[in-house]
Formats: sequence, C-alpha cells, structure tokens
Amino acid sequence: MSSYYYKCESCERVFLPNEIEDNFIYLCPQCGKANKNEPLGGVLTVLYDYEKIAEENAEELLFLEPGKIWHYPNLWPVDFSKFTLNDLDKITLPSKIINKYRLRGKEIFIQDETRNPTLSYKDRASILVALKAMELGVGEIAAASTGNAGSSLAGICARLGLTSRIYVPKNIPLAKRIQIEAYGAQLEVVEGDYDLAFDKCLEDSLNNNWYNRNTAYNPLTIEGKKSGAYDMFIELEGKLPDYIFVPVGDGVIISGLYKGLWELSVMGWINRIPKLIAVQAEGSDAVVRYLSESTFNYKPAATIADSISAGAPRNLYMAANSVKNTNGFGITVSDEEITIAQKEFIQQTGILCEPSSAAVYAGYIKALEKNMLNKRSSILLLMTGNGLKDLESLKNIIQ
Amino acid sequence: MSSYYYKCESCERVFLPNEIEDNFIYLCPQCGKANKNEPLGGVLTVLYDYEKIAEENAEELLFLEPGKIWHYPNLWPVDFSKFTLNDLDKITLPSKIINKYRLRGKEIFIQDETRNPTLSYKDRASILVALKAMELGVGEIAAASTGNAGSSLAGICARLGLTSRIYVPKNIPLAKRIQIEAYGAQLEVVEGDYDLAFDKCLEDSLNNNWYNRNTAYNPLTIEGKKSGAYDMFIELEGKLPDYIFVPVGDGVIISGLYKGLWELSVMGWINRIPKLIAVQAEGSDAVVRYLSESTFNYKPAATIADSISAGAPRNLYMAANSVKNTNGFGITVSDEEITIAQKEFIQQTGILCEPSSAAVYAGYIKALEKNMLNKRSSILLLMTGNGLKDLESLKNIIQ
Repeated sequence: MSSYYYKCESCERVFLPNEIEDNFIYLCPQCGKANKNEPLGGVLTVLYDYEKIAEENAEELLFLEPGKIWHYPNLWPVDFSKFTLNDLDKITLPSKIINKYRLRGKEIFIQDETRNPTLSYKDRASILVALKAMELGVGEIAAASTGNAGSSLAGICARLGLTSRIYVPKNIPLAKRIQIEAYGAQLEVVEGDYDLAFDKCLEDSLNNNWYNRNTAYNPLTIEGKKSGAYDMFIELEGKLPDYIFVPVGDGVIISGLYKGLWELSVMGWINRIPKLIAVQAEGSDAVVRYLSESTFNYKPAATIADSISAGAPRNLYMAANSVKNTNGFGITVSDEEITIAQKEFIQQTGILCEPSSAAVYAGYIKALEKNMLNKRSSILLLMTGNGLKDLESLKNIIQ
Repeated sequence: MSSYYYKCESCERVFLPNEIEDNFIYLCPQCGKANKNEPLGGVLTVLYDYEKIAEENAEELLFLEPGKIWHYPNLWPVDFSKFTLNDLDKITLPSKIINKYRLRGKEIFIQDETRNPTLSYKDRASILVALKAMELGVGEIAAASTGNAGSSLAGICARLGLTSRIYVPKNIPLAKRIQIEAYGAQLEVVEGDYDLAFDKCLEDSLNNNWYNRNTAYNPLTIEGKKSGAYDMFIELEGKLPDYIFVPVGDGVIISGLYKGLWELSVMGWINRIPKLIAVQAEGSDAVVRYLSESTFNYKPAATIADSISAGAPRNLYMAANSVKNTNGFGITVSDEEITIAQKEFIQQTGILCEPSSAAVYAGYIKALEKNMLNKRSSILLLMTGNGLKDLESLKNIIQ
C-alpha cells in the first residue's frame, strides 16, 4: 500500500487522501471549478514519497512485466491487496505493445493500445477508477462520454461486476452508443451536448453516491493514464525515445503520460524526459492555440477524429504544461491529412487504428516534412484507439 | 528447425516437405479432392518426431510465455531462425488470454481470442501461413473468405510487408469487406458464392505462383490453429479443463485445437485430452449431423453467426474425429439462443464477443441444463472473435 497525497495543480494546496476520497471530492476543495465550455480549474494530482520509493525499489521496474500495475504497488493510490489475483488478471493490459515499424524509410516505435480490454487507451483510466470505487465500497460508477471513455468504463465495470452509468449527448453516433450499451451500461441520453451530459452526470453522482469517472475531473483518470509511461519504460528497458507523439483532445492522456515520465525522472530512473508532441485536429486545436497564445478561447470542435474532438479541453492547463516542460510542441493536422495518414498507417503496419491515432501519424509526417525533428532522434507514436470502433472512418479510407 | 513430414488424413500416405511445399501442393497428391459443396478429401497433416521432441524438451513448455510459438521451434514446420525478432514480435499473440469468470453460479475458464492482432482466432492460422510464405520466398498470399479469415490474412500480411489477395463472394456484408480492404488487401469480388470464390482463388494462386491460405485446404491453417492448445497448456500450467466448448463452422479451429492437444498427449505432457464439444448453429449443423448420422448431406447454411456458417464444412471429417476421439459431443443452438447468450455473456464478463463465440456460451448453457456434463468438471469456453467485427449483432442484443 502506497503513502500518497493530493495536490492542487492551480493553488498548490495539498490534501490527505481521506479529505478528498471520503467526501467524494474530485477537484480542489479551495479553487476547483467546472464551468461550461471552459477547462477545469483546480485539477488534483496524486503525489507520493518519491525519495523513499526510489531508495526502496531501485530500478526493479525494469524486470517487471508490462500491463500489471499492481507489480509496483507503491506508485498507485489504491490498495491492491484488497483484490483477488483473478480480478486483477481480468483487467491486465497487453504485455507486448511496442514494436519498431519502418515507415517512410525510417524505423520508429509504435505503442499499440488498440488491443486493450475495450480497445482503447481509456482503459488505463477506467481500471484505476474502478479499483478505487471497489476499495471505497461503491458498486456504481458514472461518467459523461461521447464514446470511448463510456465504452471503456462500461467494459471494465462488466469485468469486475460493477454497474456503470454513462451520460451521453443526444447526438452521439449510433455505433458508439451500441458499444456502451452492449456492455450493459445504464445509458442516460441527455437533451443537449457533452457539457450538459457532464453536468448532469456530476449532479446524479452526487445525489446517488455513485463514484464519478468524468475525465480530468476525477484525478484518477489522469493518474491511471500514467501507466502508459511505465509500460513504455519497462518494455523499452529504460531506453525511452526522444519524441513521443500523442493525440490530444481533452488533454488527459498527454497529462497522464507526462505524469508517469516525470515520476520516472524524479526517482532518477530516467535521465531526461522525452519531448511530448501534442497532435490535434485543425478543427479542435484549443491546446495548440493555448501553447502559442497563452489564452483559452472556446471554439466548438469539428473533426472526423471524434476521440480528440474537444472545444474546451477539460485538462487544458496540465496538457499544455506537459508539452512546455518537455520542450515539445503542438501541431495540427486537417481531417484530409488524417484520412490519408490512416490509410497509409494501417496498410504499412497492420495496426487498425482510429482517426485520432491516425492524426498522430499525420502529425509526425508533417513534423518530418517541416524539419521540426532533430535528425537521428528516436520517435514513438502512441496509437490510442482501434479503428473498428469507428467503421465509418475505415469506409472513408478505402474509397 | 524442426524435422517434419506430411501425412494424408484419408489414405494415410506420407510425404516429405519438399514433395509438397516446393510444388505448391496443399491436398494429398494421391487422393486430394476439392469438390463444390463438399468437404475436402485428402487433407494433409504435419507430423514430427514426437519421441525425440519429448526426450529433448521434457516439460519446458510450462516455463514459456504464451503467444510466442517460436519459443518451441521444433513443433512447427517453419524455420524461425530466418526471421527477425522484430518481425516475430509484430505477430505475437497476447500472453494472458485465460481467466476464470463466474457465470450462472459456476466458475469457468474463458479463453479470450478477441484481442489477437486482427481480433480473431484466425490469426493463429494466418501467422503460420505468412511465415511459411516468407520462408518459401513468396511475397503474395491469396485466400477465399466471407470475413474474418480474409481480414486476418490481410492484417498479418500488412504487418509483415506481404501482399494479400482476398476473394470474396458477391454478397459479403459491407462491414466485413471494409475490414479486409482497410488493411490494403487486393480484393476480388466474384460473381457468385463462397464456393466460387474458393475455386477462383485456387486457380489464380496456381497461375500466379501466389501462396494459398484457403482454410483447411492449406494444411498450415490447421497446424497454425494448434497453437491455441499450447497457449492453453502453458497458461494453465498443464492443468487442462475437462471440457472445451468450441465454435464449429468449417471445422478448422476444432481440428487444430485437437491436433495440439493430441501432440501434448503423445509427448506425455498431458495424461488425458479434454473432451471437445462442437457447438454449431441450428442453421449450419453439418458436423453435428455427421456425428449422429455418419453421412454428409449438403444443406445451404443460414445463421446470424456468420463466422460459423458453412453448408459444406471443408474440414468436416477431421472436425468430427476431433469430437469422437475425445469422447466429446456436438450440440446446436438457435439464432435466438445465440443472441440471448451474447447479451448475457458480454454483460457478465466484459468480453465483447461476436455471435459465433456467443454460440459457445449458448451451447454450454444448453449442455448444463440438459445435464450433459459431469458435475464438478472444469469447463473452458473458447471465444474466437470480437463483437466489433459485427456491430449489427450488438445492435440486436441491446434492443
């Protein structure tokens, strides 16, 4: 069991686990805010006694199997000893996710998250959230979603015998809705957009004592997504790439990834943190705009890559810091570039990715063509979702 | 590198590898026949010097990682030393596929093949066929398919830089066609049914020196599918279940599985072979009928479980023997039972299976209710394909 505390990313106040968890608090009790069409304020981060962990564990991580976070329990805010091995095994992530592929004449690493339990990176968040709910003795978890996060939570809950309640906007595509409902989630279709679903989900969670998995709002969504960095570290035997291209919508994946890399660096297990490259769609570029203008302006999002479609990225500030702190950069790609990249990527690698992941390859191609990368540097592209989740997009690429 | 030979299942003649492989022969040169609307005659099996292998290897298999067949190279008809580790890693199967789930009050094993590289069991065949093509120096592989086999071959070929040519009947569902084409396969739509696609594919393969992956026809499709038995053996540490429920269409999966189990038994690594239960749809029940009537009559197949829809199972005789030799039985389930089982299974396990796999759960429920299973016996259900491959079926279960 780890010793940990929460810290507010905005006001830097710290809180003990019981101050937050016992009261079902998610954002900073002092400065947290969840306003419509705005990034969240007062997002909490989970922190540990890194010096102690570094001392006790040395680099034993290198000898672990990827995909099993309970193998290094002191870096997680849950008590794994409360779960059966069979339950943990049911939510194990794949142990072989990184391979080299030759693309456009250069060997690069691909991290393939398209074969996770529900076929997306979101499972990393759902797993940690579900375990925390079980630890708290709560059997129902709610989340607002436009697709992957909802089906991820629904699938993980089905595996663990929990009930999931997913709030979706009225205009959710039928295919996404089917994936959520097939797992047996209780679906609540709200008469409005994602923002309304988000608010309604928070309200109902509070009134019914459900645990809430709204993305970025629950700090464990960010914390869960840090496991992608640890799996990268384990599988690459500590030799991390120079650049990591990440698809960015709400900004939670890149923030979680950065958190993991930052921890590895703080504990002295890596010497330098890879540069994080935030790839966004032109029609959903709030993080990239914030990186250059240092100000947020709401603009409704419109892109075929619906997994990274977010007019008001909930985790904007942390996402932007993840890029800045690693000397990375942001880059945008058009829907047309995404479609072309999706076709080329799938046919060259055999990894059936969805548009948001194809955007990462499109961003890499653009960065390469614009000479934005140091020569001889090593590259990793993060593929976060399976193309079968969006069959329509595959129809586009074969036309 | 293994030492192996081919043996005809019908006339029992044996052949050296070069007599078969150098001439692109697939069925027995003496008695092989591939007639329209009939099971194949003269299917070849790959055999090894089991005594020698047993002596040399003892039970070291138990210490291997599942999903990596090149870790026990002398049980495969390819020379793995010719491939790079990076290429082999690209086609690695998941290492954690079996877990216990509590279903209807009983703990049973589920073997989850829904997260293989192209999300189906067929990858086990495609992988071995693709490696053999590379060993033979052939860069193009052709197959007739109505869906999963085609997308499997296309996806594996894309991973390894090979060209795939998939022959499909005119009435193939759009979703299946999209999956095949997305991987960049050369698609040939024939003006007729699967039989015509099968014949046309053989003809073109012969004329163009392409390697052929027609299911059951190429003996390596059966051989590849035996790896499911080895992975089961490794993951369950040699303690195999009493009953294995297998979805049966063309009969290749059950034959491959039996082949692997039989080898494990011949080498003395298991004491008894689990009973194999062949589950078929009522509208596609040729193997079950053959088991009771000992005669084959062609009947066009009709079932929602299209992965096990086969009026003339190509590997009927071997499939029937797999059941008989293990004292198993055949069982049929209706489309309605499949749909009900699919809903229950997905919601209880979080494993998003397709109808052919749901049929296995339906068959298990039926066998349970009819008291066809010994009490206290251990059960394993084989889930062979992901439900996202057939979104329409998921639409049915949530209505």
